[in-house]
Amino acid sequence: MDKVSLEQKLSLFSEHWSPKIVGELNGQHVKLVKVQGEFTWHHHDDEDELFLVIEGSLTIKLRDRDILLNKGEFFIVPRGIEHKPVAEQEAHILLLEPVTLTRNTGNVESELTAAAQPWI
Amino acid sequence: MDKVSLEQKLSLFSEHWSPKIVGELNGQHVKLVKVQGEFTWHHHDDEDELFLVIEGSLTIKLRDRDILLNKGEFFIVPRGIEHKPVAEQEAHILLLEPVTLTRNTGNVESELTAAAQPWI
Repeated sequence: MDKVSLEQKLSLFSEHWSPKIVGELNGQHVKLVKVQGEFTWHHHDDEDELFLVIEGSLTIKLRDRDILLNKGEFFIVPRGIEHKPVAEQEAHILLLEPVTLTRNTGNVESELTAAAQPWI
Repeated sequence: MDKVSLEQKLSLFSEHWSPKIVGELNGQHVKLVKVQGEFTWHHHDDEDELFLVIEGSLTIKLRDRDILLNKGEFFIVPRGIEHKPVAEQEAHILLLEPVTLTRNTGNVESELTAAAQPWI
């Protein structure tokens, strides 16, 4: 039961596409992730997912349009919706996802699938 | 299913201690609130509550200590824990709470109890 500094937690890791858990409430995990490049198309059957840009810019590709998120903007990807995050430059993202969401690539197993997500 | 700019949403209201809903996922509401002065001591029986400082500083008083939050820091008040938010200067806060949390003053009815919280 301590406060969390986003900046301090972001200083603890550098790898991309590998979310770290920094908080838990009401069955949800608060996570931080650094991203750069293209992720894989995927969806989560039972979980909505929030992306809030802390630093940089992130494009969330949907099948019918692109959502460009700048610092201080968020987007909620509803469960079941295919999406593909893309960032030309490194971006820092806060994620909100249910604790039941354990695979970052959702329905897809790929080289981008991260190991079990750790607390930092 | 649109993106949300925190800054744009914060420009839409000025009153204090009156949270506005700006997103919903997995049974949780994302809210924005402007605060200044002292709130009331209260707790929520069944809901954990996250406070993330977007602008300014916020102190969350607990019965045994004070948590000072600056911009970019968050704290999760576990369900059942009495707390009292205080801000000397105006601060802008992002809240995460279950959709079941409908009274901002929790177990307490006071002049700070806000009307039903609207979407903006």
